[in-house]
Amino acid sequence: MTVRDLPSAPSRLAEPGEGISADELALAGRNHALLLEAMRHDVTPPGLHYVLVHYDVPDVDPATWSLSVDGEVAEPLRLDLDRLRSYPPVSIPVTMECAGNGRALLAPRPVSQPWLEGAVGTAVWTGARLADVLADAAPTGQAVDVVLTGADHGIERGVEQDYARALPLSEALRTDVLLAYEMNGQPLPPQHGFPLRAVVPGWYGMTSVKWLTAITVIDAAYEGFQNAVAYRLKEELEDVGEPVTTIAVRALMIPPGFPDFGSRHRIVEAGPVAVTGRAWSGRGAVTRVELSYDGGAAWTDALIEPAVGPYAWARWTARWDAEPGDHELCVRATDDTGDSQPVTARWNAQGMANNAVQRVPVHVR
Amino acid sequence: MTVRDLPSAPSRLAEPGEGISADELALAGRNHALLLEAMRHDVTPPGLHYVLVHYDVPDVDPATWSLSVDGEVAEPLRLDLDRLRSYPPVSIPVTMECAGNGRALLAPRPVSQPWLEGAVGTAVWTGARLADVLADAAPTGQAVDVVLTGADHGIERGVEQDYARALPLSEALRTDVLLAYEMNGQPLPPQHGFPLRAVVPGWYGMTSVKWLTAITVIDAAYEGFQNAVAYRLKEELEDVGEPVTTIAVRALMIPPGFPDFGSRHRIVEAGPVAVTGRAWSGRGAVTRVELSYDGGAAWTDALIEPAVGPYAWARWTARWDAEPGDHELCVRATDDTGDSQPVTARWNAQGMANNAVQRVPVHVR
Repeated sequence: MTVRDLPSAPSRLAEPGEGISADELALAGRNHALLLEAMRHDVTPPGLHYVLVHYDVPDVDPATWSLSVDGEVAEPLRLDLDRLRSYPPVSIPVTMECAGNGRALLAPRPVSQPWLEGAVGTAVWTGARLADVLADAAPTGQAVDVVLTGADHGIERGVEQDYARALPLSEALRTDVLLAYEMNGQPLPPQHGFPLRAVVPGWYGMTSVKWLTAITVIDAAYEGFQNAVAYRLKEELEDVGEPVTTIAVRALMIPPGFPDFGSRHRIVEAGPVAVTGRAWSGRGAVTRVELSYDGGAAWTDALIEPAVGPYAWARWTARWDAEPGDHELCVRATDDTGDSQPVTARWNAQGMANNAVQRVPVHVR
Repeated sequence: MTVRDLPSAPSRLAEPGEGISADELALAGRNHALLLEAMRHDVTPPGLHYVLVHYDVPDVDPATWSLSVDGEVAEPLRLDLDRLRSYPPVSIPVTMECAGNGRALLAPRPVSQPWLEGAVGTAVWTGARLADVLADAAPTGQAVDVVLTGADHGIERGVEQDYARALPLSEALRTDVLLAYEMNGQPLPPQHGFPLRAVVPGWYGMTSVKWLTAITVIDAAYEGFQNAVAYRLKEELEDVGEPVTTIAVRALMIPPGFPDFGSRHRIVEAGPVAVTGRAWSGRGAVTRVELSYDGGAAWTDALIEPAVGPYAWARWTARWDAEPGDHELCVRATDDTGDSQPVTARWNAQGMANNAVQRVPVHVR
């Protein structure tokens, strides 16, 4: 359903030196990042987990809400919350990250939600297994993709839509993919998908569809906007590109010292400094975290603690002997597939999956 | 304690046409606004209330934390959380707003936290009355101001400080000024001041100091940075200016229809539209809310429901017969002191207390 006469922002790259636009500020004011100091918590406290809302948070009445499961299934279903709660509940700690995290650090900057580095958070999600629900619906032999549709409605680059993303059937049948009705032991907050959302551990957040209304099994690869256009790695905006799927390895530090209000520049006291943060990958265990205190010239290993869960971040710690002057701290992680973070960002036209190493300038006194 | 050799952003105005700077984006990514559609809730759900953190969220251990009460008092106190909970608990719904709300809509734009319009939220705060604690401490006849100091440490325009604000003793003794340890029936989240914060109903948020560590009664007007420099209405940055105190009257609507992702522009279906939102004032009851559907030429009254509390917002509703085309919706409120919102913003050099009417362009189809 394309309605190109309606007002809709195009995809574009910022001009060299162009400041953040009014449109980008409107997005930044709505979609909030994790405060990096909140990485001190294994599980992100309420209100600190990143939030990306494509359109508006819909107003869903849980008393009349239900979820349809249909398409290429032998037994179409309509499930209310009580029915969903009757499936064996599963709780999983998951580190979720927005695929656009780091976008605003690219040059030229793709104009969209202007994330710096904090579009991440860890929550314990509780819900029914999508696999259990699909088992009751009995996908036919023609099933290829499972489309998850939310109640949030909007227009995006001229395409009017309810937000929807698909997973291949094999991923949808993983026993850790949830239809979640609780976040950290409480009903989902409105902005996190009340009353029901998908949680796909290991994948960027775009696939963990919020405010679920429908699960539709289809007999071909899904060609909807969010799969075919939006969440793609592209060299040029016009390219078809490659799909964005699992979370690339990344480490972030809690910036040490204390900040200047207006610039967020950091001041650190000379002497031994405990540097700490988190590292995660949607593709495997984090096997190495390295720190640099000289802008990436020399690297030393940090100590990695056990991860909070197979799909959740691990704490790492290091000790830095800070000497007076100006320094640039960097951190990078490696996972057990051998992937490591690039020192220079891998640019792409939509600003997806930028896991370049974090750089934190500090002034030591 | 001025340390002007440390890196610290100056106060400045943006150049004409200057986009949002990297420094402002770093602030916007940390300090999050209310999603306006969340005004559908009387009490703002967890994580949707606005947050402004001047420096970093401090890591406070509640087991070892205590609050000192000293200065011009006969009986200096040191109170732990159990002692604070032993005072008669009081719960009050409060609409809190940042004094900088609306700053990024000013021209020229004061460079600081670039709020659009959502720096507001309503919570039910529970705690001890500050007046009860002060009664135990017994201020002397010399008492003038009550300084509230938090654990958050930073540097701001060259001044290194723990965040601190003072109230006149007469305000501090109001029976509705709280030392709050709960927000909406739960312990304070870290970003809202865990384990203890002040809540000063009716005043802009800067006085509701978070992460409280000390209450100091002094014998003169407080000359600290946040009272004497930062939160002032100034025509020129060098002026002394007037103090920012209570919240000016304001109404905001939930933008009707559905949005474009990239621009947040709105599309509305033709026909009757229920337009709704909230209105509040820290200076008195809201007595009138008016809507305009033509950019402010004609105004019609909305229906105001009873306020959530004496210091909390009221819901208002109106019905608009939307005809196809482009329209600009506006809303303005009046309180019982006779104050109303300006159609054109009252500019000031630090972008404080901008309560100009909200303008929402919509395309009706």
